[in-house]
Amino acid sequence: MPVGLTGLPTLYPIPGIRLGTTAAGIRKKDRRDLVIIECVPGTVAAATFTRNRFCAAPVTVAREHLAKFAPRALLVNTGIANAGTGKPGLEDALASCAALAKHLHCRSGEILPFSTGIIGERLPRERLLAGLPACIANLSENGWAEAAHGIMTTDSLPKGYSRKIRIGSRTVTITGIAKGAGMIRPDMATMLAFVATDAAVAPAALQACASSAVNRSFNRITVDGDTSTNDACVLLATGVAGNSVIDQSPGDAYTIFLNGLTELFTNLAQAIVRDAEGATKFITIEVKGGRSENDCLAVAYTIAHSPLVKTAFFASDPNWGRILAAIGRAPVEHLEIDKVAIYLNDLCVVRNGAPDGGYNEAKGIAEMRLAEIRIGVELGPGAFSARIWTSDLSHDYVRINAEYRT
Amino acid sequence: MPVGLTGLPTLYPIPGIRLGTTAAGIRKKDRRDLVIIECVPGTVAAATFTRNRFCAAPVTVAREHLAKFAPRALLVNTGIANAGTGKPGLEDALASCAALAKHLHCRSGEILPFSTGIIGERLPRERLLAGLPACIANLSENGWAEAAHGIMTTDSLPKGYSRKIRIGSRTVTITGIAKGAGMIRPDMATMLAFVATDAAVAPAALQACASSAVNRSFNRITVDGDTSTNDACVLLATGVAGNSVIDQSPGDAYTIFLNGLTELFTNLAQAIVRDAEGATKFITIEVKGGRSENDCLAVAYTIAHSPLVKTAFFASDPNWGRILAAIGRAPVEHLEIDKVAIYLNDLCVVRNGAPDGGYNEAKGIAEMRLAEIRIGVELGPGAFSARIWTSDLSHDYVRINAEYRT
Repeated sequence: MPVGLTGLPTLYPIPGIRLGTTAAGIRKKDRRDLVIIECVPGTVAAATFTRNRFCAAPVTVAREHLAKFAPRALLVNTGIANAGTGKPGLEDALASCAALAKHLHCRSGEILPFSTGIIGERLPRERLLAGLPACIANLSENGWAEAAHGIMTTDSLPKGYSRKIRIGSRTVTITGIAKGAGMIRPDMATMLAFVATDAAVAPAALQACASSAVNRSFNRITVDGDTSTNDACVLLATGVAGNSVIDQSPGDAYTIFLNGLTELFTNLAQAIVRDAEGATKFITIEVKGGRSENDCLAVAYTIAHSPLVKTAFFASDPNWGRILAAIGRAPVEHLEIDKVAIYLNDLCVVRNGAPDGGYNEAKGIAEMRLAEIRIGVELGPGAFSARIWTSDLSHDYVRINAEYRT
Repeated sequence: MPVGLTGLPTLYPIPGIRLGTTAAGIRKKDRRDLVIIECVPGTVAAATFTRNRFCAAPVTVAREHLAKFAPRALLVNTGIANAGTGKPGLEDALASCAALAKHLHCRSGEILPFSTGIIGERLPRERLLAGLPACIANLSENGWAEAAHGIMTTDSLPKGYSRKIRIGSRTVTITGIAKGAGMIRPDMATMLAFVATDAAVAPAALQACASSAVNRSFNRITVDGDTSTNDACVLLATGVAGNSVIDQSPGDAYTIFLNGLTELFTNLAQAIVRDAEGATKFITIEVKGGRSENDCLAVAYTIAHSPLVKTAFFASDPNWGRILAAIGRAPVEHLEIDKVAIYLNDLCVVRNGAPDGGYNEAKGIAEMRLAEIRIGVELGPGAFSARIWTSDLSHDYVRINAEYRT
């Protein structure tokens, strides 16, 4: 059951972007599994990709194509990740791009391919190609919700977010969809996210905004510490809104756009954690007072990846000793244990490295029973902080991942 | 159900070592939870302790006492870890040592305290002290099996091993017991282990042997990546066997003793993994061909800590893409993905970074159904290798750790 996540909100169309979705039978019958996102000529694109060195064939191809051309369309399939497939996998990805390019009367290099699903199996190229005409026939500016469904794998709910912001005298819109529920951890971006805006943004500014926003959103979530081979986040800017082009010169427009984008990315990133495989809790981990951001992040991720901490949250058990033990083994440069404080929401559990006098088990249980919980950690008087989001480890996580292929 | 682990083997007594065990009601009634290991004057001791910076009060005290005195007795309790307990916890540990010293007519600094159990709760000092007389009354050279039971927490079976080796013209005996089933990962030693020998060994040689053997055994296992606050491994050498004192001068005696000790430590370490919380599989991960031992270990631990790999093993699902994805995100300096090979036992799954031509799913399933599985990874032509042991991630792991305190 997703935590605090319900159906899709209104997803405003983005002038210049059309989306088509179909069920091509990539791996299962009668399941939406093929999505095309077409963008108007002149669209500027920015992207971040997985840092897993076993990156999938489509990631390799998308990177190369993006370096040479402005994209005309994104081609996304679920079911098969086309990762660990060697040279034949690369050929499958290239052939898919070529086929869609032929339909759209553009160059093969103007197509960016994306895949998500089982690693190590070949993409069923014929079924994918056979699905393209229906997908193209569906292309519509109102296709966002369908596409949000079309990119799901083990997700239990589609994920999307949309907002309008003022840039100068113009209103611009940003709309995005994302998928991901397991094999989630930062180092880009551990999922697929496709975000578009009608704002006019210079290419360098768009990439700077995308990288900055990813770093504060998708790169701050973890479900199981596993970085996928296929992660990608693409940001398209059609420029149709007609605002003065946003560049990196100091000024309001860049900041407003970046803030809006960061909020949207954060919402999508949190939706992924809320829908994490088997999640029953949505956990925010805030670490303050560190001597560097890296120290704060190291403490936060060591807590977030501890199976013992995660099972305690599943059990609503205020077994804070497990949090303390995780802090104690975090790979940080500076740690003075007699300065450490731990909070569950606003309840102080540990102060100066020892149990707080005002703490008792009943108070701890009351906090742990909530579906959304903040673990606060204070390391000392340092000036740095970091915040990440994660989920608990439940029976359903094991069930889902033990049964994924059966 | 432990994997390939049954009852205790014969544990030979060690002349000069007596063990006593009792049920002191530390946390639960009628459960053996207090153990004294008494050693004859002149015994030499070596030890390694947890590297968790939130180390428990008894770890702090044991380290200090060991630096000053040769120990006369070890005092071990289960139920309460006496970790995260601040200054009152230190006083509890010191008071326990003082009380036992009074009974044994020795100095308080000659007692080494050890605790394991719940973190963050105070040691019930009165109940522990009240249990000492019964424990002392039980002291016997044949007390090893009882003591192996007395140090268990979530262990489903007691763990011990014993062997005799020839040193020159003498037969010496090494006997050890260990506990540990969760919160297990290297960086010393993630459990309690108490090993004794009647061999005569010089102090520096004993510590060198202990450190070397720990590094190849207890520091090569992981269940959940969580390093406990209380881990300790103590090696006692009474010298009663009368062999020429083993020192670090080149020669057979040191090597024979070290090899015997390493075998015994490895057996105990593997027993901990075989009895890991919820384990249904015993997994050996061997990484070869790396450019450094650290690279090999980083790949091995990234695989071992991946919840997705661990659930696939639980499901007997040859989802090798998860192993490949873990290798791809391992924090190593050198990784050429087109040189990587992956084996399940002797079955080649991936060769040169892509699926092996001779592999098929049926063959993979046959290997994955075994209770003991070796994952072999070849990184390339490098000269280094590493081997670690781990377990799978099952429903029972979650159940055990969600219910631990209830």
